[in-house]
Amino acid sequence: MNVLLCGDFDAAERARWQQALAAALPEARWLDEAAAQARPELAQAAVVANPPPGSLQGLPRLRLIQSLWAGVDRLLADPTLPAGVPVARMVDPAMNAAMAETALWAVLSLHRGFFEYARRQRAGRWQVHAQRRADEVNVLVLGQGEMGRHAAARLAQQGYAVHGWRRDGTPLAPLLAQAQIVVNLLPLTPETRGLLDAAFYAALPPQASLVNLARGAHVVDADLLAALDRGRLRHAVLDVFNTEPLPPSHPYWQHPRVTLLPHAAALTDPRSAAVVAAANLRAALAGAPVAHRVDRERGY
Amino acid sequence: MNVLLCGDFDAAERARWQQALAAALPEARWLDEAAAQARPELAQAAVVANPPPGSLQGLPRLRLIQSLWAGVDRLLADPTLPAGVPVARMVDPAMNAAMAETALWAVLSLHRGFFEYARRQRAGRWQVHAQRRADEVNVLVLGQGEMGRHAAARLAQQGYAVHGWRRDGTPLAPLLAQAQIVVNLLPLTPETRGLLDAAFYAALPPQASLVNLARGAHVVDADLLAALDRGRLRHAVLDVFNTEPLPPSHPYWQHPRVTLLPHAAALTDPRSAAVVAAANLRAALAGAPVAHRVDRERGY
Repeated sequence: MNVLLCGDFDAAERARWQQALAAALPEARWLDEAAAQARPELAQAAVVANPPPGSLQGLPRLRLIQSLWAGVDRLLADPTLPAGVPVARMVDPAMNAAMAETALWAVLSLHRGFFEYARRQRAGRWQVHAQRRADEVNVLVLGQGEMGRHAAARLAQQGYAVHGWRRDGTPLAPLLAQAQIVVNLLPLTPETRGLLDAAFYAALPPQASLVNLARGAHVVDADLLAALDRGRLRHAVLDVFNTEPLPPSHPYWQHPRVTLLPHAAALTDPRSAAVVAAANLRAALAGAPVAHRVDRERGY
Repeated sequence: MNVLLCGDFDAAERARWQQALAAALPEARWLDEAAAQARPELAQAAVVANPPPGSLQGLPRLRLIQSLWAGVDRLLADPTLPAGVPVARMVDPAMNAAMAETALWAVLSLHRGFFEYARRQRAGRWQVHAQRRADEVNVLVLGQGEMGRHAAARLAQQGYAVHGWRRDGTPLAPLLAQAQIVVNLLPLTPETRGLLDAAFYAALPPQASLVNLARGAHVVDADLLAALDRGRLRHAVLDVFNTEPLPPSHPYWQHPRVTLLPHAAALTDPRSAAVVAAANLRAALAGAPVAHRVDRERGY
């Protein structure tokens, strides 16, 4: 089996992936972009991580494009992506667990006021605030895919009053009106781009908080900053941004009501993801159905 | 039923407790310290929250001293505490849950490096660090009482490799040698006072972290600061201190490897704790055994 491996990783990352993939799929021969361009008839499948646009065209024997990342919005935006080849998202159990951990940490921090205590520590202020029970906190999880369902289950296990929403026609406004904490785990599609705008924040009760672990383009930054600055929103935990890395001058960096992570809420774990990728590559080359195949119309 | 209510709460706190206790035990008449001193033969039970030393002596009909707090070390340190009267600790389900939440938040923060990301945000630095799975993190919970067991169960539910220790002769050193995160939930007794000293930190592997949610006097502060400053310990999350409130000049406040809370890891919830206290008061006055009775020899 000849497999093209290409993506935007650095040398150390690429070495980690090479090692994990070689262990999970010892029968494969791995091609880099130069090798695939030199002999395009060789590549039977591609394992990709945000590959440079154009790198997957002109490969006549390609049977599967397996993404190493869960989000495929950048991959699908490449107009040269070969139309007839199935694309699969990565569903990595270690990544699902990591995402649920980050969601739980953010919700615990907001519920119990730990970000506020961190500010008080820096100010040298000893002051206790009131404490609510978890079942008194309404958490709304946007997105009910692999990651949304995992995160919602972990939050419910901790006693939170968890509600879920997906884009299936369920009205969003009544759920927003009850939500004290919103956790966004939606896929980025033309329908969800910019969903977290002024109207969205206005539909929340005063002093609600936002946790965005999905994509930066879900958020209209100016509207979020306005909602925070007017005191309408209490706090935002942001892992993803419209421009990444977040530019040094961006107001999020030093905003007292923003906690930010450098797109680190959940990293794909090469050890488990390579096993998932290997199973899918074997299935594709045997003519069997592949798991987590992307619906290009829906966009995820 | 005539019940003395006394403690070190402020007016608002006292009013919250009065309201909750009156709802849970409508048959009781509540005495304050002055009323009990004026007619000492009235008080049949006492509900206390770190009462001033001496306030429980000379009450001939006292059948139960019910603490509203889980920790009774300050109460038992009063030499005038009447010897023949049972003392009960508070075991409040809402407090157990809150303590487990704080333990989970601290462990998630340490495991996933969220304190480090907060420092990077303040420094304007976009940099991802490596991610381990929860089952690769050894967490040692000291104390296997109500709170220790609750916290350990929640941590295990999240996938951590959890070990427990109690002072029953089990050697501590082999467990410390394997621990990446230690969560202290021991009772404060003469045997556990100062347990977290230089020898304790030296027994941990390099770059382990400490979460102290029990009592400040478990920690030898100079030894903890030395272990942090020498880079032996990675981080400490401290909720309790040898002197509270923590004095403004204390090095913990601004230490980059210390996250501190103002003794807020778990507040007793008057709504549920009053129900627990009411059941115990009724039992005591009916001559039935009381729950969570303190063994004065053991000290908890």
